[in-house]
Amino acid sequence: MERVKALVFDVFGTVVDWREGIARDAAPFLARHGRPDLDPRAFADAWRKRYQPAMEECRAGRRPFTRLDVLHRENLENVLRDNGLDPARIGEAELDAMNRAWHRLDPWPEAVAGLTRLRRRYVLAPLSNGNVALLLNMAKRAAIPWDAILGAEVAGAYKPQPEAYLRTADILGIRPDELCLVAAHNGDLRAARQSGLATAFVLRRTEHGPDQATDLGPDEPWDVVAADFQDLARKLGC
Amino acid sequence: MERVKALVFDVFGTVVDWREGIARDAAPFLARHGRPDLDPRAFADAWRKRYQPAMEECRAGRRPFTRLDVLHRENLENVLRDNGLDPARIGEAELDAMNRAWHRLDPWPEAVAGLTRLRRRYVLAPLSNGNVALLLNMAKRAAIPWDAILGAEVAGAYKPQPEAYLRTADILGIRPDELCLVAAHNGDLRAARQSGLATAFVLRRTEHGPDQATDLGPDEPWDVVAADFQDLARKLGC
Repeated sequence: MERVKALVFDVFGTVVDWREGIARDAAPFLARHGRPDLDPRAFADAWRKRYQPAMEECRAGRRPFTRLDVLHRENLENVLRDNGLDPARIGEAELDAMNRAWHRLDPWPEAVAGLTRLRRRYVLAPLSNGNVALLLNMAKRAAIPWDAILGAEVAGAYKPQPEAYLRTADILGIRPDELCLVAAHNGDLRAARQSGLATAFVLRRTEHGPDQATDLGPDEPWDVVAADFQDLARKLGC
Repeated sequence: MERVKALVFDVFGTVVDWREGIARDAAPFLARHGRPDLDPRAFADAWRKRYQPAMEECRAGRRPFTRLDVLHRENLENVLRDNGLDPARIGEAELDAMNRAWHRLDPWPEAVAGLTRLRRRYVLAPLSNGNVALLLNMAKRAAIPWDAILGAEVAGAYKPQPEAYLRTADILGIRPDELCLVAAHNGDLRAARQSGLATAFVLRRTEHGPDQATDLGPDEPWDVVAADFQDLARKLGC
């Protein structure tokens, strides 16, 4: 970690609590459109479940790189159909507002304070599969102190493709080993390490709710393992 | 201006004083390498004079898009040769450090305070031909409060190509008329207006030194005309 000049962060699950944020906005939306019976957290999970397969179309080259706002919107319409709702009857403004719930996710309680400490010493940026507008609107609303908005859209490739990590280091004007990925997901860290980045695991044990079964600890000896962002700041001497 | 959601800024000359910043770092560099007789401001002007022709190679399609750090470095080596200095004898570390003077430019005196006011109401980002690392390092050093780092590298096109303006609006998720370019250069504003952006002219009467002959006032009725960034904030009700 001595060489590291910049920290880049996974965002969904690592910086923000997507499940509770989506559920919060889905509850009144579903009620307005005739399905108050649906569990909004199950709706959030179903929406999120379509995330990796949608990006995989781009990663596999079957579709040109397409920003996440567009994929989220397509996935939303499909999840609505799965629940017997016709997107065409809901209307553009309502669909767009619901889709933008991803722009309004709240950070985990200690995240902004931890980032504020880390920013004194490091360049901080998201390295998220979220697009620039999504990440920027999220940061503006929640006062997340990024130095730049990076990620899949700027790199033109979705994680865990190597280009997402390597192009981010290149854009920052640093070597891969001068860049550290911070993530709550072992798979993301594995891909980052394979591209030569430093790695920091942060535990988020309720990203998927109280019964979460994945990423409950580090699978490999990552360069840093932290309980949360305040702990990460302490371990990095910030 | 009622529709405007985001302000994007020209940087060299509009936000920062490139001439004095380059001259400040060029003076000891030239002295160390045997040319203490050279005027560092004339050296800055000569370096800057190669800026537009270098980008024009990319704009005209004779060269793929190449980030400004690379063009600046090539231009530096050519200006050194013009002054009888051999870059090969100066060495990589010294050349790189001199090239990074563009990352260390100081904002005009009221710029950060004005931006801080404007940021309460608008999304703020550079829309500069400078690359991401250059703009990020500059902002970190001088505490320039951007919400994101945008510009030619993210858009993949150098101003005044329409793509530089239009792709920036697209990345921000807004229409061109919801985006306002702030610049001290009538030509930049003209191109932005042709792409449908709102326009704000800010007077910088010494960008090129005390004898500046260009951009001493608005050439067209731009949407806003301001004396500096504090005046811009006041005129936009921030």
